[in-house]
Amino acid sequence: MSPPKKQLHLTAFMRPVSLHTGAWRYPGAYPDANFNLKHLISFIQSLEAAKFDAFFMADHLAVLNMPVEALKRSHTVTSFEPFTLLAALSQVTSRIGLAATASTTYEEPYHVARRFASLDHLSGGRAAWNIVTTGNPESSKNFGRDEHMEHGDRYKRAREFYDVVTGLWDSFADDAFPRDVESGVYVDPEKIHTLDHKGDELQVKGPLNIARPVQGWPVIVQAGQSEPGCQLAAETAETVFCSPQDVESAKALYQDIKGRAKAAGRLPGLPKILPAVLIVIGDTVEEAKQKRLKLDSLVHYDSAIASLSIALGSDASKFDPDGPLPKDIPDTNASKTGRAGVLSLAEKEGLTVRQLAGRYGGYSGLAFVGTPETVADELEHWLSEEAADGFTVTFPFLPEGLENVTKKLIPELQRRGIFRKEYQGTTLREHLDLPRPSNRFFGSTSKA
Amino acid sequence: MSPPKKQLHLTAFMRPVSLHTGAWRYPGAYPDANFNLKHLISFIQSLEAAKFDAFFMADHLAVLNMPVEALKRSHTVTSFEPFTLLAALSQVTSRIGLAATASTTYEEPYHVARRFASLDHLSGGRAAWNIVTTGNPESSKNFGRDEHMEHGDRYKRAREFYDVVTGLWDSFADDAFPRDVESGVYVDPEKIHTLDHKGDELQVKGPLNIARPVQGWPVIVQAGQSEPGCQLAAETAETVFCSPQDVESAKALYQDIKGRAKAAGRLPGLPKILPAVLIVIGDTVEEAKQKRLKLDSLVHYDSAIASLSIALGSDASKFDPDGPLPKDIPDTNASKTGRAGVLSLAEKEGLTVRQLAGRYGGYSGLAFVGTPETVADELEHWLSEEAADGFTVTFPFLPEGLENVTKKLIPELQRRGIFRKEYQGTTLREHLDLPRPSNRFFGSTSKA
Repeated sequence: MSPPKKQLHLTAFMRPVSLHTGAWRYPGAYPDANFNLKHLISFIQSLEAAKFDAFFMADHLAVLNMPVEALKRSHTVTSFEPFTLLAALSQVTSRIGLAATASTTYEEPYHVARRFASLDHLSGGRAAWNIVTTGNPESSKNFGRDEHMEHGDRYKRAREFYDVVTGLWDSFADDAFPRDVESGVYVDPEKIHTLDHKGDELQVKGPLNIARPVQGWPVIVQAGQSEPGCQLAAETAETVFCSPQDVESAKALYQDIKGRAKAAGRLPGLPKILPAVLIVIGDTVEEAKQKRLKLDSLVHYDSAIASLSIALGSDASKFDPDGPLPKDIPDTNASKTGRAGVLSLAEKEGLTVRQLAGRYGGYSGLAFVGTPETVADELEHWLSEEAADGFTVTFPFLPEGLENVTKKLIPELQRRGIFRKEYQGTTLREHLDLPRPSNRFFGSTSKA
Repeated sequence: MSPPKKQLHLTAFMRPVSLHTGAWRYPGAYPDANFNLKHLISFIQSLEAAKFDAFFMADHLAVLNMPVEALKRSHTVTSFEPFTLLAALSQVTSRIGLAATASTTYEEPYHVARRFASLDHLSGGRAAWNIVTTGNPESSKNFGRDEHMEHGDRYKRAREFYDVVTGLWDSFADDAFPRDVESGVYVDPEKIHTLDHKGDELQVKGPLNIARPVQGWPVIVQAGQSEPGCQLAAETAETVFCSPQDVESAKALYQDIKGRAKAAGRLPGLPKILPAVLIVIGDTVEEAKQKRLKLDSLVHYDSAIASLSIALGSDASKFDPDGPLPKDIPDTNASKTGRAGVLSLAEKEGLTVRQLAGRYGGYSGLAFVGTPETVADELEHWLSEEAADGFTVTFPFLPEGLENVTKKLIPELQRRGIFRKEYQGTTLREHLDLPRPSNRFFGSTSKA
């Protein structure tokens, strides 16, 4: 018997339901997919039937700050709030993980600890917390501050915030509640810990007013790629959401974070690295490419050309939209790497200025575009090369683009023996092969 | 044909599931009723089948501060967080209203506006916000503050907080989202309002990042009985949760709040007044009284006698537990009204010291105890006397005490024509006969 193959972990990026700005206009797509509960229920049920590890919600604490011409075309302007949506979805699913983003800059740790504990109990152990420090400076204006907190200070607070939240989750031993009707003892006071945290940024007494989460702690997710972001991820995260552009940069990031984690004394294999990827499936590679070009073409030209200009560091609106990218674009210091990327892409795919603009205005991150077999080859390659432990998948349009993944790509991955055919456990920690943390105040108990 | 009878409105008080501290120990009761999702689902489905207006969750932002001997016997120590629980319950129900408590002292208005809007969308227009300023000083220590905010300041902030939250709910016109695939216009920028609030307590820019709630605004609930609490209720509330001890004091409170509301220019009939009441049903009045005595007897004597001592303003632990209350308790200034109440109750029901202690340690608020017919008589009397527009019902133990209400009392109220046999609408505003607020920035639209 051959040894078991390394397994892929797959998380669906679902807020917004597609990161491609043209997604809602694709022929046959639901224009309101991002804000229609019935559709979201059908999506999560399809993802669960395909045995995805988790349903992931990014978050923003403001309407995104963009020019009105872009704003009016954005399907992200109205979205559900993560905790209420995931709690609702917990009742129409039974196994798939539920990952919510919560900000350490604009939230209170007592509220965050409590809501994730509640979601974990309501879902039978399926919650994950994506720790963010909130990059969008517009958010500060919705929370009574004129100035956005400085980057380093945000990460300092984030680290302390994590300590407080996990400490609050450990307020009760797992067996703190005898609920003995005869003697009348509901909770054992010896098994309640008062945190009494007094730090530089936070003062929180505790205990939390909800029992320890089913998973001990909800799974910790982190997405930072800055220097302090990588360090926070290495010290605290159990899965990392990141955005490398190619397999080589992914391998470097993978090594960097795993090395930092090892130096920080984390368990081997932690954190799991799950790069974001747009997946477009066709019956042929050519058909998949045409779908993507069609999708890119649905980005309004005004927004698209502005995005291309930013990537080039040069005004692209003066070029012939339907001609090739001119070779003689003047050099600027602003964006050498960006321009090199655009020029390389233009040459590789033979794209016109209009098509390049659609790409940059639509979604210019990592994408696998092809048949179930060619995309499975790429996923398997990244996995075996230690560029990824799995992926955070964003869909091109819904429902079709999602169903192509769940009904065509997933069976191919299962056939290859690199993705589960059935869930082996009931909690997200079990899906991700993560240990249940012991309680820092009461140690491990029978539940652990 | 006789004119239609004035209709009762009934809200179920469900956090905790019973306000009686002995509830979890009653024979046949679920000891974990307050923290078991399956049970909570069965309760809300029973309440919906009985056509209750709403399921109401009080809230606390700390483990309640009580002596360890009382704490260890409390079934409230672990509870679900309101938004996550109600969002989950929204998916197993279709009509009943979902009322959550949120604090204006320890929350941010942007978060509160967003979560209620999200719950309202997820539930198809069934959300209500119970505005509280958080009386428990222990809460401040979980939110980085040494001192609890002073009472008057809390209400000043609450009033401004209400203005900001309702203003954020009005960020989008009801018809702001054309989602026109052809032209690529998802949202009409002319139909987005930026609040830009700069007040004494709060600065919030807006707009909110979620569409206007289905109900325009979730229903506004208020529970204050202090001077500023009554004034806030009169100015803002659509239903009032209050705790009068008898029909005469209820009538006075009813008149006071309705008068203030009229003076504040509110619509006639606003706010609806829904006093809290414990309902215990038996096949005979005597059986119902025995159930209550049994329930009171399940409160641990140590906690019970402490509560009685507080009510009397005198140490009751020195009295013979199984004898009558002594006549010669010395007068103190501390609690003349309290002692008069205890003495009157002792005489009226012929209770021993132990039984009185169980009453004060269990639940000493307003209670209707009797057969479906006698309790219906009381409800109808309060309704016709303008002491109440309905009630906030707390149950003695669950499931039996709840089922006695839904299966025995409700049919009697329906037979009398004072409670609905079917929901007439789909939103909580429709159940409560409340108008849908017009948008302060965009006026009424076709949805209104």
